[in-house]
Amino acid sequence: MGMANMDFVVRECAAAVDGQMAVVRLGTCGVLRPPAEAGQLVVASEGGVCVRRDPDAWTLSDGRPRYPLSAAVPPDPQLTSLLDAACVAEVGPAGVVRGLNATADGFYGSQGRTGGPFDDANDDLISDLLAARPELVSLEMETFMLLHLAACSGGKVRGAAFCIALAERYSNRLFLDAPTLRRRELEGGRAALSALVSARLDADASTLNGNSPHARPAGGYVWEEGYEESAGGDLDLDLGGGGGDGEDGAGRAAPGGEPRAARARAAAAGGGERRGAGAP
Amino acid sequence: MGMANMDFVVRECAAAVDGQMAVVRLGTCGVLRPPAEAGQLVVASEGGVCVRRDPDAWTLSDGRPRYPLSAAVPPDPQLTSLLDAACVAEVGPAGVVRGLNATADGFYGSQGRTGGPFDDANDDLISDLLAARPELVSLEMETFMLLHLAACSGGKVRGAAFCIALAERYSNRLFLDAPTLRRRELEGGRAALSALVSARLDADASTLNGNSPHARPAGGYVWEEGYEESAGGDLDLDLGGGGGDGEDGAGRAAPGGEPRAARARAAAAGGGERRGAGAP
Repeated sequence: MGMANMDFVVRECAAAVDGQMAVVRLGTCGVLRPPAEAGQLVVASEGGVCVRRDPDAWTLSDGRPRYPLSAAVPPDPQLTSLLDAACVAEVGPAGVVRGLNATADGFYGSQGRTGGPFDDANDDLISDLLAARPELVSLEMETFMLLHLAACSGGKVRGAAFCIALAERYSNRLFLDAPTLRRRELEGGRAALSALVSARLDADASTLNGNSPHARPAGGYVWEEGYEESAGGDLDLDLGGGGGDGEDGAGRAAPGGEPRAARARAAAAGGGERRGAGAP
Repeated sequence: MGMANMDFVVRECAAAVDGQMAVVRLGTCGVLRPPAEAGQLVVASEGGVCVRRDPDAWTLSDGRPRYPLSAAVPPDPQLTSLLDAACVAEVGPAGVVRGLNATADGFYGSQGRTGGPFDDANDDLISDLLAARPELVSLEMETFMLLHLAACSGGKVRGAAFCIALAERYSNRLFLDAPTLRRRELEGGRAALSALVSARLDADASTLNGNSPHARPAGGYVWEEGYEESAGGDLDLDLGGGGGDGEDGAGRAAPGGEPRAARARAAAAGGGERRGAGAP
């Protein structure tokens, strides 16, 4: 959960995919103002901004903003349009709301949750966000990183995002009831997959991954490139059980493997708003 | 994994603890320069800084730094001293190294990992970090958030951190071998617990949690305070199986429960450097 984990998902999927990759995030969010309400599917049609706590505002006490807001990053227009239509097909026009999403770097301070012993200085955070970006509709923890990475991918990654509105931050309504949430998860999942299978990807994108025809040999990891095998170690780490120690590491790459599909689509699902322990 | 999840751990533990709380982070890290080497225990004796990717450097292309570095936040001196001594007792003086830690907001861009299709502009990141903070010794993804929250806690939280050096970023040595890592995990765990049980906590800290004698009634969550029950929903979400829907939610608070221990200590363990799938 959170932007660091979205970063993992996008980069490691991108390294395993030959060619252009479409990614739709489906998660949960809080909605920030009417008419958005709990239970709707919230499409980040205007893309996303990022709100992060600046720890130096506390450490240095120099008057800088505590929660600076980034510039907006747009989503992929075609994928977003497909996603919007698929959402309407699943839940009807009244079940879909659109706007700008804000991705926070935490669940508490940078989402305006107050109380407890911590000096968060966030009493006015949500109203400040809405004043700065009137088109803001939702708040969660992952979308911005997908859109930012897509923007930095040189065409490799195309991203769109939507969320199930789980909490109404303006009414302090707790959470969407569990049966409706379960239904929205299925409807949203179908909408994401529908958009992904309909998206047209660039046919000539097979060299977008750094090292054509693959970014990494099968069995490797995106971040291993700069490393060599440690002297006494092994990489396979007991895969398959036993005998891992002292292997020469040759098993890590599987040369000659079949090229993977030239196009790939991935749906990244994850939490934004949290539910209690024991949630299904 | 990552700062958002450290934020969750610290805040939710703090809400469940009456009085002052000592937290030691034990994780893994990369080390940035000799004499630090893989296999050592790296104590954040000088505390930590935070290195984060500024997405606006890409979005706005206005020449701002891509990976600005925060000011340093110190650790709790007493807890750190106890931790250092406990590490030496476990692995000997040569097995312990000390310095300033850097917490990155991702595993790739903001840790100087290069390659792949993304425009990370991070070829010089690690050398820039070392030039800016010569006392830097380690790089991981969680420590700073613990220290920052402790600094913002009004005395509620005391934090210290150390890591197992898993990778040498300067030599491109892959990873500490698995048997040594396993041993360090046990040694480090013992050192963390030894420091925690030895730490003296303020006896008069029982009101530090916002709402004395407890921040939250038993069974509640730190972030629920501002919410009301949704009309048709339930909070217990199938805890205990069946019958959750339509409950009135009265079970969420357990009034009259016994006060929890006046003092509590927590050791947060988690990954920093990553290992391959199938890691033990």
